[in-house]
Amino acid sequence: MEKYAMFGKLTAKPGQRDELARMMLESSGTLEDMEGCIYYILHEAEDNPDDLWITELWESKEAHAASLKNEKVLELIGRCRHLIAEAGGIKVRPIGGKGF
Amino acid sequence: MEKYAMFGKLTAKPGQRDELARMMLESSGTLEDMEGCIYYILHEAEDNPDDLWITELWESKEAHAASLKNEKVLELIGRCRHLIAEAGGIKVRPIGGKGF
Repeated sequence: MEKYAMFGKLTAKPGQRDELARMMLESSGTLEDMEGCIYYILHEAEDNPDDLWITELWESKEAHAASLKNEKVLELIGRCRHLIAEAGGIKVRPIGGKGF
Repeated sequence: MEKYAMFGKLTAKPGQRDELARMMLESSGTLEDMEGCIYYILHEAEDNPDDLWITELWESKEAHAASLKNEKVLELIGRCRHLIAEAGGIKVRPIGGKGF
């Protein structure tokens, strides 16, 4: 099965990045139990005060897609939405390395 | 101790990405033994045929800096250099999540 990765960028509304990060980290326990999630790490951009970057590695594209249907994940997305100005990212295909 | 992350982008010379990735993956055994390296994952950009993205998470900035003095790492950088057109990336500070 081919692993699946994402580099997601969330641009918070001005001044809201800390609150957005706090809410997402509070809920990261949800991911601990999520089947097929190898890692999901939240980062602050150093060069932009509003950007958060999330790197994710999943056992498969299907495992990632299933997570987006999880009730707790949907609830979190709903609760965070008003803090987010824009969502984007970089499309990548993971090919190997340490921790792969 | 504060963890350290990097999103590195390597742009290969035209047509050289596969060879660059192959050389880097061959040497990823070096990182398996590298103290303080939590993960180091190589990705192909889907939207650009020449770009590789590397996400790294280290126990500390010092552990990452020490890796750049490792002889095998220096040897690999030297061997790959002629395949690389440009190196860049995104500066980030890791703050938490699953696998952190």
